[in-house]
Amino acid sequence: MLWAVIMAGGSGTRFWPESREATPKQFLRVFGKKTLLEQTFERLKPLISPRHTLVVTQKDKVSRVRALMKKVPAAQVVGEPVGRNTAPCAVLAARMALEKDPEAVIALLPADHRIEDEAAFRRALKHAALVAQSTGLSVTFGVKPAFAHTGYGYLELGGIFSKGALPVFRLKHFHEKPDLKRAQKFFKAGRFLWNSGMFVWKASALLEAAQKYLPEAPQIAEKIVRAGVKPGMDKFYAGMPNISIDYALMEPLKGKILACPVDFGWNDVGSWESLRDLHPADKEGNIVLGEPLLIESGGNIVKTGKKLTVLLGMKDHLVVDTHDALLICPVSHAQSIRKVVHALKAKKLRRHL
Amino acid sequence: MLWAVIMAGGSGTRFWPESREATPKQFLRVFGKKTLLEQTFERLKPLISPRHTLVVTQKDKVSRVRALMKKVPAAQVVGEPVGRNTAPCAVLAARMALEKDPEAVIALLPADHRIEDEAAFRRALKHAALVAQSTGLSVTFGVKPAFAHTGYGYLELGGIFSKGALPVFRLKHFHEKPDLKRAQKFFKAGRFLWNSGMFVWKASALLEAAQKYLPEAPQIAEKIVRAGVKPGMDKFYAGMPNISIDYALMEPLKGKILACPVDFGWNDVGSWESLRDLHPADKEGNIVLGEPLLIESGGNIVKTGKKLTVLLGMKDHLVVDTHDALLICPVSHAQSIRKVVHALKAKKLRRHL
Repeated sequence: MLWAVIMAGGSGTRFWPESREATPKQFLRVFGKKTLLEQTFERLKPLISPRHTLVVTQKDKVSRVRALMKKVPAAQVVGEPVGRNTAPCAVLAARMALEKDPEAVIALLPADHRIEDEAAFRRALKHAALVAQSTGLSVTFGVKPAFAHTGYGYLELGGIFSKGALPVFRLKHFHEKPDLKRAQKFFKAGRFLWNSGMFVWKASALLEAAQKYLPEAPQIAEKIVRAGVKPGMDKFYAGMPNISIDYALMEPLKGKILACPVDFGWNDVGSWESLRDLHPADKEGNIVLGEPLLIESGGNIVKTGKKLTVLLGMKDHLVVDTHDALLICPVSHAQSIRKVVHALKAKKLRRHL
Repeated sequence: MLWAVIMAGGSGTRFWPESREATPKQFLRVFGKKTLLEQTFERLKPLISPRHTLVVTQKDKVSRVRALMKKVPAAQVVGEPVGRNTAPCAVLAARMALEKDPEAVIALLPADHRIEDEAAFRRALKHAALVAQSTGLSVTFGVKPAFAHTGYGYLELGGIFSKGALPVFRLKHFHEKPDLKRAQKFFKAGRFLWNSGMFVWKASALLEAAQKYLPEAPQIAEKIVRAGVKPGMDKFYAGMPNISIDYALMEPLKGKILACPVDFGWNDVGSWESLRDLHPADKEGNIVLGEPLLIESGGNIVKTGKKLTVLLGMKDHLVVDTHDALLICPVSHAQSIRKVVHALKAKKLRRHL
């Protein structure tokens, strides 16, 4: 059976001041009428039952997630007492799925991405699940690049593995976020895909790989599942290694991983700049949420709060006004907004975090 | 006797959103602990008694002015029912002063300027008053230019009229605000001074000039004074010609006007950019009113409101946050803030005017 594992533990500091520690990106409604988390859940619904859905989030967000996803059994919303990146989350989820379903295939999906063509997404997921089930190999989704993006990691394709409407390739290499020159080379070459961070794998095969490359993780997961996934798990979970699944499992397995090129309008909503792809612009190229007064201004991203916001002669700037904080920066600095969060921490301005 | 005529009728749209129709520049405390109007009044005090002070403001501001300047007799705070620029204001004030003092010399002074060296200002004023009284000529203050400013009009000096610690020259020409090239020429030439808009004149001589060049104004002023300066004056005042004293009287009289070069740290507080001269900057060149968080930002002018304001990677921008409006523009656009006020009028956003 295909299970969904929704990874909802991100902190989303790049969306400050809209995102806060208490309200990270997956809980924001800036990118649609529903939160990104709900959108993620709902696009899966026609394919995967809520009873086969696991959500891993931060411990203090568990009740909020349960409230947003009432049909998911409460025991399947897991709260991490501490952030330990994606590998422990994937291993624990795999172990939990296996407990209920020895043949479980799990789709590991970030909670805070946007996908335009949901039907195409589900077709790809279904196909990848079949391939993952029949081969025991991990199938990652690689997005056909629209341009030489420097903000994504890349998957380099090897030889063809299976043909058809949705061909699958062997994965040759993972590449970190490239500089522009390298990104342009990747884009031109054609065998490179944006690493979406989404993949499908048999739970048993994932655990097997973990036994080999990250043995502490399945051991701890075992203890947690035996004790019952409940507040008592905290003392075990803290012992998990802090590492991403890409580094811990994917990288050592490369050559034995499959990649499926997809093209369903994917966006990782990585920064305020993503709004350029998610929201229509006015004729001066401004992306506007709210009702600012824009005079001789173009290419800006503006989200207003309750007060009248006026931009005069502003080009390519980001302005976000919330009830207690206001951020202004060039759009080119949108990737550096973490610096603001770091500065707030350093200055102990906790109520704005 | 030397009288002060404080012209407090300005609308100060260039300080939006801090200045509003209800609170124009002369009522702002942004530039010191007291309003610019109070500062103007208090720097005169050691030289001119409040009993010899006249204030001309907008009709709806009269009670506010009286509250700020309690020692000025109430009847000497005059409310214009409609704005008619400086000539009618000067003529009416001259006529009022004359009614009480046939030998009155009046110093016409904008209410919204800053002066650093107040003692030097009073020395200059005293000297100019003596010259004006003995010659019957108008004596204008020209400020020794610190650089090739394009935001001021210029006075071109002619031959010397009287030597001494405070020499006085004949005024050869008024020049409108120049472009940069012309301003540089003026600055280099040395015989050019910034037109401060402050001048001293015998009230009788001013009225005589007005009889010749703007005869309606003294006729109307006569009617107003005879009827008593009170709400009934409104119907007369509306008939005043709408013209500045520079155009109406100074320009036709050039060659018969004197100019006194002064150097007392004068600033007309003409735009937010003036804060560069009035307020110390941090080491990145930011002028800060309030407590913003500035990261990799320099050369900005920032006035914060109640919420945390963060600038990231911003250079040379103006940010003004008030309780109900927020303005963001490059400092280079600070002179164009009137455009915002015009746009608000066009959009009928009256509560922000």
